[in-house]
Formats: sequence, structure tokens, C-alpha cells
Amino acid sequence: MGLSDVVTGPRNEEGIAAAVGVLKQRFGDRLNTGHSIREQHAHTTTYLPSQLPDAVVYPETADEVRDIVRVCADHKVPIIPFGAGTSLEGHINAPNGGICIDTVGMNRILKVNAEDLDCVVEPGVTREDLNVYLRDTGLFFPIDPGANASIGGMTSTRASGTNAVRYGTMKDNVLSMTVVTADGREITTGTRARKSSAGYDLTRLFVGSEGTLGVITSVTLRLFGIPQSITAGVCPFPTVDDAVNAVIMTIQMGIPIARIELLDTLMMKATNAYAGLNYPEGPALFVEFHGTDNYAAEQAELFGEIAAEYGSSEFIWATEQEERNKLWKARHDAYWAGMQLRPGAEGVATDVCVPISRLGECIMATQEDAAEAGIIAPIVGHVGDGNFHVALLIDRESEKEIADAEAFIARLNERALSMEGTCTGEHGVGQGKKTALIHELDGCIEPMRQIKRALDPDNIMNPGKIFSLT
Amino acid sequence: MGLSDVVTGPRNEEGIAAAVGVLKQRFGDRLNTGHSIREQHAHTTTYLPSQLPDAVVYPETADEVRDIVRVCADHKVPIIPFGAGTSLEGHINAPNGGICIDTVGMNRILKVNAEDLDCVVEPGVTREDLNVYLRDTGLFFPIDPGANASIGGMTSTRASGTNAVRYGTMKDNVLSMTVVTADGREITTGTRARKSSAGYDLTRLFVGSEGTLGVITSVTLRLFGIPQSITAGVCPFPTVDDAVNAVIMTIQMGIPIARIELLDTLMMKATNAYAGLNYPEGPALFVEFHGTDNYAAEQAELFGEIAAEYGSSEFIWATEQEERNKLWKARHDAYWAGMQLRPGAEGVATDVCVPISRLGECIMATQEDAAEAGIIAPIVGHVGDGNFHVALLIDRESEKEIADAEAFIARLNERALSMEGTCTGEHGVGQGKKTALIHELDGCIEPMRQIKRALDPDNIMNPGKIFSLT
Repeated sequence: MGLSDVVTGPRNEEGIAAAVGVLKQRFGDRLNTGHSIREQHAHTTTYLPSQLPDAVVYPETADEVRDIVRVCADHKVPIIPFGAGTSLEGHINAPNGGICIDTVGMNRILKVNAEDLDCVVEPGVTREDLNVYLRDTGLFFPIDPGANASIGGMTSTRASGTNAVRYGTMKDNVLSMTVVTADGREITTGTRARKSSAGYDLTRLFVGSEGTLGVITSVTLRLFGIPQSITAGVCPFPTVDDAVNAVIMTIQMGIPIARIELLDTLMMKATNAYAGLNYPEGPALFVEFHGTDNYAAEQAELFGEIAAEYGSSEFIWATEQEERNKLWKARHDAYWAGMQLRPGAEGVATDVCVPISRLGECIMATQEDAAEAGIIAPIVGHVGDGNFHVALLIDRESEKEIADAEAFIARLNERALSMEGTCTGEHGVGQGKKTALIHELDGCIEPMRQIKRALDPDNIMNPGKIFSLT
Repeated sequence: MGLSDVVTGPRNEEGIAAAVGVLKQRFGDRLNTGHSIREQHAHTTTYLPSQLPDAVVYPETADEVRDIVRVCADHKVPIIPFGAGTSLEGHINAPNGGICIDTVGMNRILKVNAEDLDCVVEPGVTREDLNVYLRDTGLFFPIDPGANASIGGMTSTRASGTNAVRYGTMKDNVLSMTVVTADGREITTGTRARKSSAGYDLTRLFVGSEGTLGVITSVTLRLFGIPQSITAGVCPFPTVDDAVNAVIMTIQMGIPIARIELLDTLMMKATNAYAGLNYPEGPALFVEFHGTDNYAAEQAELFGEIAAEYGSSEFIWATEQEERNKLWKARHDAYWAGMQLRPGAEGVATDVCVPISRLGECIMATQEDAAEAGIIAPIVGHVGDGNFHVALLIDRESEKEIADAEAFIARLNERALSMEGTCTGEHGVGQGKKTALIHELDGCIEPMRQIKRALDPDNIMNPGKIFSLT
């Protein structure tokens, strides 16, 4: 589990040297072997130790990606695709060394088909850049994992975030993509049709495959009209259980709430302190409603009735965009806010997702576990989906604290599985959850490996991830 | 294309005889080798010629399915899973012979988790049976392909239908499934969590794989609350273009219309005659709105404004359930109604799906093509998704008419592809669209075959479908 899943694989020294040489000739300054650059490309927000690639190359076109893959394939050298480096489970580590493909230079928005509500973007486009670009069209791309992740990375990890309860995850919002596979061919996995029954759903296979099957060179995304009305607010509850029961009722009643985020007492305290706010310091739901003026108001009213039923005494509205931005910034900064609860500590972020009926039980058992283990572990969650995050605040220099954190995470994973949930709702498996994945989908590991071997027989695509092929 | 894709593969006579013998001993009367039963299991609503299995076996449990698969795997004998036999592209033909697994006896609803809005069913449960069972819970399963298909079959073909514009397709509504793979193991592809980033999305890989990767033994489905208010109506338009423009505007405005179905003039005439109705005999949209009382009314009002803008002069409401049932029965009977346009003829149903901005152009070009080709071909469509069906009324005894129909369908497929659409929005590939699939996703055929070979090296799972492995 975790650290023990970060193994170092066999290095093909000769192949790596040859590939770096060829690529250096081809890409010149756009291939970098400096230690600090390589370090940056392996060191992300994860607590897992860095495993550096041997070089970082910066392609600017799909053709260049294809050239890089072909060189690496010829020399059987690992390829690690890199977006914005915001993944959390060691996805971009290079356990066997190899070439990191940084897509930052592939950041063009290739096409917006406003009337079809879709667009085609390169993988290095970030979600914030896309939404800035789209603003004048009246459209937006709703998936919001918090970090300003790249579309390629979000696709690779099957990201979701605060809006998923209403708009779905990357699985639901990628119509098609182009991918350079391990044999150096660029394939297109679908069309712009909204739905299709045309053969195996390779689009969905590549979504969430964490770079282990190919390098994404473009993504066709669904877009949505910016709602006429957006209202948001913060709703404090007496207990986590009350808050979660309000969530369950909201979902069961089919209220199409756009965001419904839980912050526990610890996280609310941290958020108030970090963002200079003065929300009540107990569990709270941050909510948002999208719709026509009438319908957004009706949803808010229905939700208000539910909240009152579960003991919420007030509803702190944020109707103006500026207030809403402040509210959601506070929510998105929860990770950083949480870190202030223990100055000097660093966060270990993890996530699980359970059927919503088990959510309250799962969160409370997790809080008790943290208290017993003596770990400061504030909780935030995309609770409309049954998904929540725990940020463990530890001293990453302390082996004991890392071991305690890993044991805690292992218990959390098992708790989620025992409730018919998953060990990761949105972060992905990477290196850190490989053991948990075996516990979760034991019978699927071999089929996944069979698919991997079929499509990438030399195991050059982001090796050492998901199912432990090193 | 079509007929030419229906090849007869090599028959493993010895293996088939051995497997039938073993299974006869094991299943007794539940294994049937009679010609008429075998004929029924290969002859569906497709125009493609039947290719009979050698035996039909009726398992009642997942363990029995596993036993059957193991026997067939041991003897390298093809397996053809069978649901309700409503597929349209030769999906259940047995080009190499083999054993048809009829899941009619696996029709138990294993669990309804009302508070999590999900349920677990066996593959032989039909969508109508499921909804009857659910009625008292206040929940429903929305996917409605018209025919009373089985959940296993709908999963296998990635079915959708009239409600997909609001509720998605099978891809969006299967949370997990259990499948017996070609090696005779039963695997579970996911959990009951609403979302997950736990490894390759095998659930989505199996959805739409048309039985070529395994036999489904249970499916976990999303459910939805029955809306407080359902209103429906018929809205005639001066031209198909006007109707389609109203659809485009409705989708672009984000009105979450539950159903929006186009019937062209020919189909409206047929429907009036068949169902004893007297709707205006021009192009029309059949629509339905779901929501709270206020919101369903608001949607209907907004749609009414759009329809008026595009020349619709009236809106024939059906607010009572009985009227609604009549309206949707008329829509669902369109295929049978269409057949009356040419007494004695049989229908060849086909479907394509294009980006919505191209829909009007695609439908009108298709109508012109039919007129020029002298084929009576009424059109109905799930137009909110850009998906439409053409029912070609032909004399199936006439080689010329079949050839004309196939040429027409080939042109239709190419037309859809040229508009960035797909050759099948919901029927699947089966045998009939194998050539079209190559035209559509050329680069994906080899990865699909690689996956197939990896998971089913002896090609026993529904051979001869999708990508022409025979």
C-alpha cells in the first residue's frame, strides 16, 4: 500500500541513452535533462517519493508526439505523459526512468462548435484557460477538480470534482480523443456524435487509463450553456450526519443541484482562519444551483426546506458573482487551509467514494479513526456523489507518521470497499492505490493487464502504474 | 456492407458435438437442439439471413453460465448470448455455429437500493418488467429503446432510445456488472459507487461489446425518481428543417427535455393510419418534459416559444397518463406503422447519429436520396441526440431491392460520417455495420481486435461481430 507500491523497475540504460540522444538532436533545447527540471516533473502534490525521468521533452504538435513515441518505442524506453502535475498518487513518477512528455506547449483550443456544444482542445489546455476562452460564447466546461489541471491530465485520471453531481465526470464529457498508441500510430477514438454504439468504447477505455495506453494529443469535450441563474450559499448543520442526510434527501428528490460540498468542523475552522471568513465553525454544506431564474430559485427553496428539516438554522447566500467566487475559492483552498491546522506539516490527500446511503457512516467512522490514530485529518467532500477527501497532516520527514498515515489510508480504503464503494472516486490509482485496487477489483486486474499487454507489449507507456507492471 | 459482412466462419464440428453432448447431460431439457428453437434464436428483426446456433441452452444462475462457458471454452466452441432477440444488426447470428445462451430464465431483480437510486438485476430482466417492479418505489429506469429489450441485451448493444437526451444511454446508467469471461471466470467490473477512478473502465468496455468479450450475469443500474410532473405533446412543423431547428435551439438553451422525437411526414401519415389518430400529416415533434410541477410547465412554455418561432402553429398536449401512453405507443409503434405504407413489405431498420447542427441537412439529404432511389423510407428520430432511424420498406425476397437498400444504407452511413457523425447511434455494429465501422474508426479496429484477442484468444465469444473476426 502506498510507499511499498513505489518500486523501482528495471532500467533500460542503453535504450534510454540512445533515445535521449536521438530526441536531443530532433528537439534541441526542447529536450531538457537538467536535474531540477526532471525533479519538477516527478515531484507533485503527492507524498510518494519522486522517481525522476531521464529527460523532459516539450512537443508542440501531435506529429512531434508521434515522433517521440516512435523513438521511445524503437528503443523500448518508458514514456511518462505530463499535464499540469497536479495528480496525487504518483502518476507521473518514472520508476523505470524514461522520457517525460510535457504537453504544456500543446495548449491550443483547436475548435469550438458552439451550436453543437462541443470543442476540440490540445491536452495541455488547462480547464481555467478553456473557460476564459469560452466566456464570450455563453458556454462553459463544467468539470472542476479544484486544481487548474490540464484537460489531458483530467482525461487520463477520469477527474471530476465539485460539479460532477450535476454534470458528470470526464467519462461523461469526453466525446472522443486522438491518442498516439505504443506503436506510434495516432488513432481517433470516436466522432462528434453525442452517442454511438459503434464498437468497443475506446474513448472510455482511454479515459482514466493514466497514460498507460497512449499519449493523448487532442480531446473533444462536451460543453454546456452558462446557466441563466447561479445561486450559491453555505448551510451549517448541527452534525455531519445531519448534513449528509440533507444531501441524501436532496439527491433522492432529484434536485439537480450543481454543487454540494461538505466541510467538516475541522475544515471549517481551517477555512475561516485561512480565508478570513466567519462562517459558523461546525459541519457545513457549500451548495450551488443552476437553472433559469425561476428554477434555480425553486431548487434553492426545496433544498432550504430539506436543510431546515435536518436542523440547519440558516442559509448564508452568495448570489453575486463576487461573493460566489469568494465562497468557492475558500472551498478550493481547503487543502491549503487544512495545512494551517498543523504548521510545518504537509498534507497527504486521499479520496474514496461510497454509495450515498453509507456516506455519513463512512465519514464518521473515518473521523473517529483519525482521532484514535492521533492524526489531524480534515475532511471535505463532493458528497452528492458519495465522494470525500481526507487531508492527513503529517510530518513527511517522520517515518512513523508516514507509516501511520498509510495504515490510516489502508483502513479508509477497506472501509469504503466494505460499504460497496471504491478506493478512489477521482484521484486515480497511480502508484499509491495499486494494492487497494487489487482489493477492490481483484478479478479485473488480470483483464486490465491483458489489455495493457495487448496494446503496449513492451510496457513503455507510463509503466508501474495502476496494476503494478514494472 | 450488410449482407456481404455475413460470412460463414469455420465450424469446429468435433468440439461442437462434444460440447453439446456434455451440456445435454448437464442441462437435460434445458438444452434444445430442435430446428425451430434454433431458428427462433437466430431470426430477429434484422433483414440479414439467419445463421443458426447448434443448440440453445437456458441457464438459471450465474454458476450455470460459468459452467456453460467452461464447457465451450474447453472445446473451443462459440457462445452467443441471447436476451430478448430485439437487436437489429445480426448480433445473435451464429456464423460459426455454437451454443446460444438464452438468459430468459435469469430474470430476477436481485436487489433494489432505493436510497442509493440503484438496483441489481439479472440479464434476462426486460426493461418493462423492471419498471413494473419498481413502480411502488417511486423510482424508474429511464432507458427506453422502444422494444421490450432485456437489460443484458441493452447493455451489450449500448442501447438508448427516446429518453437518452435527458437520462443518457446504457453507458451512463450501468454502474457495474458481473461477466463470465472467456476463461470461465466471473468478474465484477465495478462497485456501487456513483463514480470511480479505479483503473481501466471495464464496465464501459463491456457496455456495447455485443457479447464478444463475455456473458453478462448481472447488471447494476442507476435509477431515477419518477418526476413529480410529466407533460407531453405533439408539435407539428411546416418542414423538417423547422422542426430540427427547434430541436437545436431547445438543446442549445439547455432545456432538459426528457424526450424529443421527430416523425417525418411519411411516418406521421403511417402513424395516423396505424393508430387511428388524426395528427396533422406533416413533420412533427413528440416531446415530453419531466420535473416539478412548476419546472415541467416552465420547460413546456420555453419550448412552446421556440416551436412558435419555427412556425409551429399548435401544441397538442397530452397531460393525462392515458393520453401520454397513447402518444408514446404511437411513437413506439412507428416501425410497425411504417410497414403499412407498403403492404407486404418488410422493414429494414437502420440508424445513424450526427452532431445536431448537421441533423436537418442529414435528414433532408436522406429523404431526397430515398426518393431518388425509389425506396419508401419513413424517418423517426431521437433528434435531441442527433440520432435518427430510417425504416426501408422492401420486399425481402427481391435481391434487387435488398441490394438497393444496402446501397442506400451505405450512402446513409457515409453521409453521417462526412458530417462527423457515427454509423450507429444505438443499434450497434453486429454483422450489418462492420464495413461502416471500418470507415468510421479505421485506426481503432486493430486496437479493438487486440483487446478481443487478449481477452478471448480462442474467439469463442460471439464471433464474427463488430470487427470481422470469424
